[in-house]
Amino acid sequence: MEHKKLKEDSEMKIYNYMPESIGRLVSKLKERNNEEQKNITEAVQSIISEVRQRGDEALFELTKKFDGVSLQNPEVEKSLIENAFESIEPALARAINRAAGNIRSFHENQKEKSWFTTEENGILLGQKVTPLERVGIYVPGGTAPLPSSVLMNAIPAKIAGVKEIIMLTPPGKNGVPNPAILACALVAGVDRVFQVGGAQAIAAMAYGTETIPKVDKITGPGNIFVVTAKKMVYGVCDIDMIAGPSEVLIIADDSAKPEYVAADLLSQAEHDILASAILITTSQKLLKMVLIEIEKQTAKLPRKEIIQQSLDNNGAMVLVDSINEAVKLANKIAPEHLELCVRNPFLLVGDIKNAGAIFLGEYSPEPLGDYMAGPNHVLPTNGTARFYSPLSVDDFVKRSSIISYSKEALENVWQDIATFAEAEGLTAHANSVRIRFKDSR
Amino acid sequence: MEHKKLKEDSEMKIYNYMPESIGRLVSKLKERNNEEQKNITEAVQSIISEVRQRGDEALFELTKKFDGVSLQNPEVEKSLIENAFESIEPALARAINRAAGNIRSFHENQKEKSWFTTEENGILLGQKVTPLERVGIYVPGGTAPLPSSVLMNAIPAKIAGVKEIIMLTPPGKNGVPNPAILACALVAGVDRVFQVGGAQAIAAMAYGTETIPKVDKITGPGNIFVVTAKKMVYGVCDIDMIAGPSEVLIIADDSAKPEYVAADLLSQAEHDILASAILITTSQKLLKMVLIEIEKQTAKLPRKEIIQQSLDNNGAMVLVDSINEAVKLANKIAPEHLELCVRNPFLLVGDIKNAGAIFLGEYSPEPLGDYMAGPNHVLPTNGTARFYSPLSVDDFVKRSSIISYSKEALENVWQDIATFAEAEGLTAHANSVRIRFKDSR
Repeated sequence: MEHKKLKEDSEMKIYNYMPESIGRLVSKLKERNNEEQKNITEAVQSIISEVRQRGDEALFELTKKFDGVSLQNPEVEKSLIENAFESIEPALARAINRAAGNIRSFHENQKEKSWFTTEENGILLGQKVTPLERVGIYVPGGTAPLPSSVLMNAIPAKIAGVKEIIMLTPPGKNGVPNPAILACALVAGVDRVFQVGGAQAIAAMAYGTETIPKVDKITGPGNIFVVTAKKMVYGVCDIDMIAGPSEVLIIADDSAKPEYVAADLLSQAEHDILASAILITTSQKLLKMVLIEIEKQTAKLPRKEIIQQSLDNNGAMVLVDSINEAVKLANKIAPEHLELCVRNPFLLVGDIKNAGAIFLGEYSPEPLGDYMAGPNHVLPTNGTARFYSPLSVDDFVKRSSIISYSKEALENVWQDIATFAEAEGLTAHANSVRIRFKDSR
Repeated sequence: MEHKKLKEDSEMKIYNYMPESIGRLVSKLKERNNEEQKNITEAVQSIISEVRQRGDEALFELTKKFDGVSLQNPEVEKSLIENAFESIEPALARAINRAAGNIRSFHENQKEKSWFTTEENGILLGQKVTPLERVGIYVPGGTAPLPSSVLMNAIPAKIAGVKEIIMLTPPGKNGVPNPAILACALVAGVDRVFQVGGAQAIAAMAYGTETIPKVDKITGPGNIFVVTAKKMVYGVCDIDMIAGPSEVLIIADDSAKPEYVAADLLSQAEHDILASAILITTSQKLLKMVLIEIEKQTAKLPRKEIIQQSLDNNGAMVLVDSINEAVKLANKIAPEHLELCVRNPFLLVGDIKNAGAIFLGEYSPEPLGDYMAGPNHVLPTNGTARFYSPLSVDDFVKRSSIISYSKEALENVWQDIATFAEAEGLTAHANSVRIRFKDSR
């Protein structure tokens, strides 16, 4: 990465230190998925219809084809899960247990109660909260397994009271999944684990096969095939959200420490080449020092090639006149993770409209949220924090309205109901109340 | 409708009195949309891309083509909305105002507060609730306008604190929308009304045009074109849910009044020929009397042809041995509306797992919920009550996690974070906490 001459994008006032990058930061971020997705749609469509029509037979064929593994029974033995902690380092076991405890205690606060209201003339109205019956969690395999995502997806489902949580993950080498993933499944309360991956795993959970039970909701991250399959089965079952690449946006004033800011940007950039790390600052001095720090730190990082591509393509450093301007731009971008590295971060919280998670102050780096603090790390990406929320206990329940009227209460409103129904041309609706008061026409 | 001989479906124990109907009730209900939808997808895709690329120009062309109307300015004048109550009958005005009051007071109970928790060593975690910025409500036009749906969609958005609510509805004859729809828009707090309909209206709200502002979420019912367009723009903005045809399922014992049960089944069947009305009862006597009542009442109803087709294709009467069996079957069907016409309906509420709205007792007919009681009439259809909930204030807010750690608090966990991050191969994540404690590697 070379220092490029400070250049100003007149339209957006973006000073960009990264080569070849952002003319129109906002719109570009929102667009980056589209092209890739189109090419994959057809392949996924055919995988889904195969699994839907032929069940296990198709599932096993596709697993042979894509993973090179011949499945006999895709279900992971219970004993392997129960003994998973024996196969991992004590330090990791401790980290998993602490994280699980924090995630559990944060999400307990999200539990929603059924409620009702009454009126004196025999009206009772309410809302009943019922956990989903069965939920499926997808956990990617591949080179970097993500045990933390098992905790973040399964614990809220468990707290919601979901009866059965199943987990699907691509077949591992040696025929067994990563032990850290199994340890997290155990501590989070996952009931059954199956070694099936990709779009075929999503299809199996949505429609059910002989061995994989049909679920009410699918959650969890995945590659573009998995994401596309989730979008396609949406409506057959529920899904968590259409996830895109990961993002961090840091708002910093001159009180921020350049080495921390740089490290946090890099922690985002290392995810993948589509990940986006953005700094918006009021301090030109900080901006320059962060750039120096980025070079220094990147040199020592194993994933430096990914980092460099990610910064080149989707990174940005923006100099603004005021923190207000920074907040306005952040709201426009609607980042997944927002760090407020400013003197009094709590004063800005009210102005932040669009962000998945807000990290306040210099000791709240984004990886704290990824693993340990407790709030969910499944967050809206790619500008969708405009309307989506972090994964929560709410996502694993559904509500039913409760309506109970006495004769007296209905008598008091039946004529209005009939009037309204007739205005909509729905005479049988009107008749349904009329008939109860012998005014059947 | 003739009386057919009682025949038993051995697999499901369904006694079916309707001609030509259900072999496998459950699966059929879930499937009925699929074929129709496939044929429409392409047309909608092209409408969306036209509007996205050419904005108002395409929007006006498509309105000319599909509605036969040349738009100058699609926005309905403020004065027309403000004076809408003058153009409707006093009885309807009264019904609208009472309904709006009840809807408002029920939904006020759904307001969610931002919350936080603290620990003594400087940890603050929380969840900030922020209303969506701008929401778009679609209201179908055509022969039977649905003013009640304006109330049901706009009032929860308003209570949530949405800044701007826009409403799109197909152009009316005489160049003005139905006055009852405008009156409902006024009382519900809709800010702007535009006369644009169909898939092009959904595209305009998702992407924005010169005259229609881009929204964060689209809600409201519509025909198959509108529904398909909503599914396609999902992710660009949020949508309420993938709605299907309407359903009622009535569980009745021998205490139920046949004329009420029949009237309530008919009120559902009149919606459209895909609507589904199902009775599950423990009483053969009731079942027979309901059938007689259905014939008697249908004869007097203006929409009798729709009713007959709906009952023939998607209606069912099921005789079961016990109320428990009825509840089990109802949970399998997961109906939009569930009426419990039994001696003590409250005792069944705990066993009901899947239902959009539950109506208890003989004075709580389904149309009470459609118009007046207060709970939302936008409910999960087509078996999706397995995982979806009624439209609520929640649907018009989003949440952001709040994470704030002190130095002391982070010091206590940074090593666990580093361990976890390294187990996932994410060294830059580990570095982001290490660097704060001068253990940069």
